[in-house]
Amino acid sequence: MSIEDTAEGAVVPFCSVKERPDVTGQPEDYMARALHLARRGLYTTDPNPRVGCVLVRGNQIVGEGWHELTGEPHAEIHALRAAGEAARGATAYVTLEPCSHYGRTGPCAKALAEAGVDAVVAAMLDPNPQVSGRGIAMLEAAGVSTRVGMLEADARELNVGFISRMSRSLPYVRLKMAMSLDGRTAMASGESKWITGERARRDVQHLRARSSVILSGVASVIRDDSRLTVRAEQLGSQPDSHAVQVSHERGLRQPLRVIVDSTLSLPATARCLTEPGRTLVATVSPTGPGALDNRDHFRRRETLVAAGAEVVTLTAGPSGQVDLEALMHYLADVEQCNEVLLESGSRLSGAMLDAGLVNELVIYMAPILMGDEARGLLTLPGLEKLSQRRQLSIVDVRAFGPDWRIIARPVNDDETS
Amino acid sequence: MSIEDTAEGAVVPFCSVKERPDVTGQPEDYMARALHLARRGLYTTDPNPRVGCVLVRGNQIVGEGWHELTGEPHAEIHALRAAGEAARGATAYVTLEPCSHYGRTGPCAKALAEAGVDAVVAAMLDPNPQVSGRGIAMLEAAGVSTRVGMLEADARELNVGFISRMSRSLPYVRLKMAMSLDGRTAMASGESKWITGERARRDVQHLRARSSVILSGVASVIRDDSRLTVRAEQLGSQPDSHAVQVSHERGLRQPLRVIVDSTLSLPATARCLTEPGRTLVATVSPTGPGALDNRDHFRRRETLVAAGAEVVTLTAGPSGQVDLEALMHYLADVEQCNEVLLESGSRLSGAMLDAGLVNELVIYMAPILMGDEARGLLTLPGLEKLSQRRQLSIVDVRAFGPDWRIIARPVNDDETS
Repeated sequence: MSIEDTAEGAVVPFCSVKERPDVTGQPEDYMARALHLARRGLYTTDPNPRVGCVLVRGNQIVGEGWHELTGEPHAEIHALRAAGEAARGATAYVTLEPCSHYGRTGPCAKALAEAGVDAVVAAMLDPNPQVSGRGIAMLEAAGVSTRVGMLEADARELNVGFISRMSRSLPYVRLKMAMSLDGRTAMASGESKWITGERARRDVQHLRARSSVILSGVASVIRDDSRLTVRAEQLGSQPDSHAVQVSHERGLRQPLRVIVDSTLSLPATARCLTEPGRTLVATVSPTGPGALDNRDHFRRRETLVAAGAEVVTLTAGPSGQVDLEALMHYLADVEQCNEVLLESGSRLSGAMLDAGLVNELVIYMAPILMGDEARGLLTLPGLEKLSQRRQLSIVDVRAFGPDWRIIARPVNDDETS
Repeated sequence: MSIEDTAEGAVVPFCSVKERPDVTGQPEDYMARALHLARRGLYTTDPNPRVGCVLVRGNQIVGEGWHELTGEPHAEIHALRAAGEAARGATAYVTLEPCSHYGRTGPCAKALAEAGVDAVVAAMLDPNPQVSGRGIAMLEAAGVSTRVGMLEADARELNVGFISRMSRSLPYVRLKMAMSLDGRTAMASGESKWITGERARRDVQHLRARSSVILSGVASVIRDDSRLTVRAEQLGSQPDSHAVQVSHERGLRQPLRVIVDSTLSLPATARCLTEPGRTLVATVSPTGPGALDNRDHFRRRETLVAAGAEVVTLTAGPSGQVDLEALMHYLADVEQCNEVLLESGSRLSGAMLDAGLVNELVIYMAPILMGDEARGLLTLPGLEKLSQRRQLSIVDVRAFGPDWRIIARPVNDDETS
């Protein structure tokens, strides 16, 4: 059984380094292997982080593992089980600081020490400021030597949402948009189907599959009767073929659908309400004179709940609409959401950007021109001077068939000034 | 004297192939060398094509040359002079079919035959349908063997404007735009300076330097008081360092400035009128009742001419404005313009696209967001349905500092249907 043929977390003990072209015996190579394993959980570990672990003794991998599903053993436990007695004297390469808490499988730091592991190399500390460093301390107290920070940037990238939730009580928000070369998302009539091609749309399915939440505004959902689901058949096998395979084998996880709907105007017949997975409608209490007597609002709420939606009432922002920052905190703290994919119209997208809640823009650019009368990408009211423009940094540009995907991140003003 | 240190057209005879890392003795390598030489004329040969020539005998380059300035010898003549007697029995690699006409230096086809060249390999035929194939026929009649079509795509790319003018009586039009990530060119107020960074702006200087014409609309010229010139100091040394060097040494050629101004509203104080080079104002005759008595029009015309402009009156299109196709034919046929760089606002840019006169879009995309209230890229009236969108093909995407440049070409409907 080759390592490529298994969905089990712990495999291939006693495999010589020389037989593995991707492992040449440098410490960084073992950590890269651990990261590679961790990525197999890309679509399944939510809300847990993706973690991989490789145990090495005398330049040989004696056990490895990765975390697959919440409630199942952590990466370290899989690796220790695979190594058995060979773990004694080994060095463990873990993509995240081993945990120090007593959960289903006990603290991984304790398990590593008890198995006789000699040294632990962690790519990064636990991002939860409450427990950060405790796993390392537990290991050191047990006489295990430690090192932190190997390939840390890659490790952070892999769990960017988990880190955001742990350190800021906010999810990591990706704003996905499809536009023409001249920055238009739909014709003036709203017609917008098939701006981008099949390969770009397939990539969006991968973005959805890794997300905890797909977030949209009620106007967009009504206009397109959006399903807001991951379509298993569109995931294909590339990229992240292992992660897709695991996702298929363990059952496709549907992200939570969150619809911003301050007036509860989502119809009970909306297609997304009958799709697998949960739909959460975020709204606000009616305000103004007679608000408490607003029977209509409560009736709509009951109708939506009866149709399968969950409705959460949040504080209103200055405009009387759902306070988006409150919603993001709710998603992080209550729903344990790490990564949010925002797929909506120019208004909600602009409002999220305006509120500083977007961490990444993922723009699919189709090689077409739609003209100035077509709908724009982002409503950003109050932007009148060039000096007020939002500064971004383009971090990735690549082709998907005839289309191009651009990934950009807002530049922190503090960093640039 | 190394080949890199000279601005002369004909250099380095008897240089061994082995000493030249870029020439390995394959025929295509010699043609690539000829194309490389031809590119040295990128900024100077206008309105002539850029042409390079390499003479090879027994796997040795015995002479090479390239065309530098109109009125000076063609590439083949430079190469023959460099080779001297060594041309006898050689094979000539030329990036364009040798000419058959009796100009300043006589037909190059005749010169090659008389020098005793054994064989001629041409990347492409002369694009002028009136003379295409005659140079080859002249060579064959003189007993020289010929081959046509080696690295033809590269050769065509190098002279895309010359080919367009010769085969269609139209220049090759590049539409240059600078936009934000959300497809905006200026704030609603018109404020638009410095959307892109220095490296992108420098690249624009290279685009200008290779163009026969910089084309703009009068509204843009007035708004920005545009100079529409090549700034020598911004050309730097990369890319095309040889071409830049030649340009510096031979005197910077300023492209013809063409301003579309149907109402002759360009002020006589416009900065571009005092810049080096010519400014051509394209207008139409006044129409409607009393048009012939329109003293105002003729007075403005006289004022502009007195200020240094040339004014050409063309037929009006259905809108009463300058017929853009007529203007393009005028530029190709009368002004011998090969490449036009269109740098204007959304209206003229959209109208040129609408008329099918744009061959290439060069879009500099800055990593900023400007919002829906900012000005859009292209006015394309009448585009209401997604099926009417303009289909393009993205042919090049690359970074210039923090900005990205996208080159796209309209897809011919005939090709896609």
